Amino acid sequence: MKRTGLICINTGNGKGKTTAAIGTAIRAAGQGLKVLILQFMKGQKDVGELNALSKTDLPITIRQYGRKGFIRNKADRTIDCELARAGLKDFGEAVASGRFDLIILDEINMAIDFDLLLLDDVMAAIEQKTPELHLILTGRNARKELIEIADLVTEMKEIKHPYRKGIMAQKGIEF
Amino acid sequence: MKRTGLICINTGNGKGKTTAAIGTAIRAAGQGLKVLILQFMKGQKDVGELNALSKTDLPITIRQYGRKGFIRNKADRTIDCELARAGLKDFGEAVASGRFDLIILDEINMAIDFDLLLLDDVMAAIEQKTPELHLILTGRNARKELIEIADLVTEMKEIKHPYRKGIMAQKGIEF
Repeated sequence: MKRTGLICINTGNGKGKTTAAIGTAIRAAGQGLKVLILQFMKGQKDVGELNALSKTDLPITIRQYGRKGFIRNKADRTIDCELARAGLKDFGEAVASGRFDLIILDEINMAIDFDLLLLDDVMAAIEQKTPELHLILTGRNARKELIEIADLVTEMKEIKHPYRKGIMAQKGIEF
Repeated sequence: MKRTGLICINTGNGKGKTTAAIGTAIRAAGQGLKVLILQFMKGQKDVGELNALSKTDLPITIRQYGRKGFIRNKADRTIDCELARAGLKDFGEAVASGRFDLIILDEINMAIDFDLLLLDDVMAAIEQKTPELHLILTGRNARKELIEIADLVTEMKEIKHPYRKGIMAQKGIEF
């Protein structure tokens, strides 16, 4: 069967956008696909997926393009923009290299939403993809132009969340 | 920080219920948690997550309680019921053993929906859990009684799906 590269988007306000992408990376690696995960707006090293994936020899490469902590004000953003653009540039090079079968652009929707990346630049980079390459874009507030070009779009919708009951983020589940 | 065991449910008609659970298993393993994945109604061996996880030495155990293929009629179900009940029994033993920090009951909502398991039996098994144990239940049509006792519920909602465009299920992405 010839492979059809899918453009997938995990969006919405609920949990599971990144973890579903990581789970798909595991599934894809188990089927022999080579996977690249580019995490935008993330720079925290003590996250479970980084720890776990660095311990395996699965064909999954993971890179981060963000700082630890969250962007709080616009004045602060120069470095965040530079990091995000470096991620988009690496995406372009990874596409051109032909070395990967699945590339995950984790939180790229957020990077666009926070004006770290221009939608047009992201669209232009995606247009360069080969027909066989699978892409997964994650993050809330996916732009309608991206949903338009996607094949598979899932909204992760929060029905109930423990923060509302005053339970703190749990290590291993939420990071 | 003391751990609070969360009961999480991934439900809805969209993609990402199982992959988000697998991604959380990876994240949890990366944070040193011991993970057990019990897959109900699944018996297909050529799935990416089985292949990949069997190649790593991450503390993730995965077991299947189903046959290859889908249940087509009621008359056929004796063996499916037995398999599902064996899974629920193993869940009870795993809880009692105290050996795991996160147990994933993959597609258990479907097993209830297909009358392979009684809701009351599942509820009774969950009631035995220790306060620290995290649980993730996946599958569409989660019962309201389960949503009631859960801490974190996410609906994976299909916005767009490639089958509608006539694209076949893609190896590595959908299985």
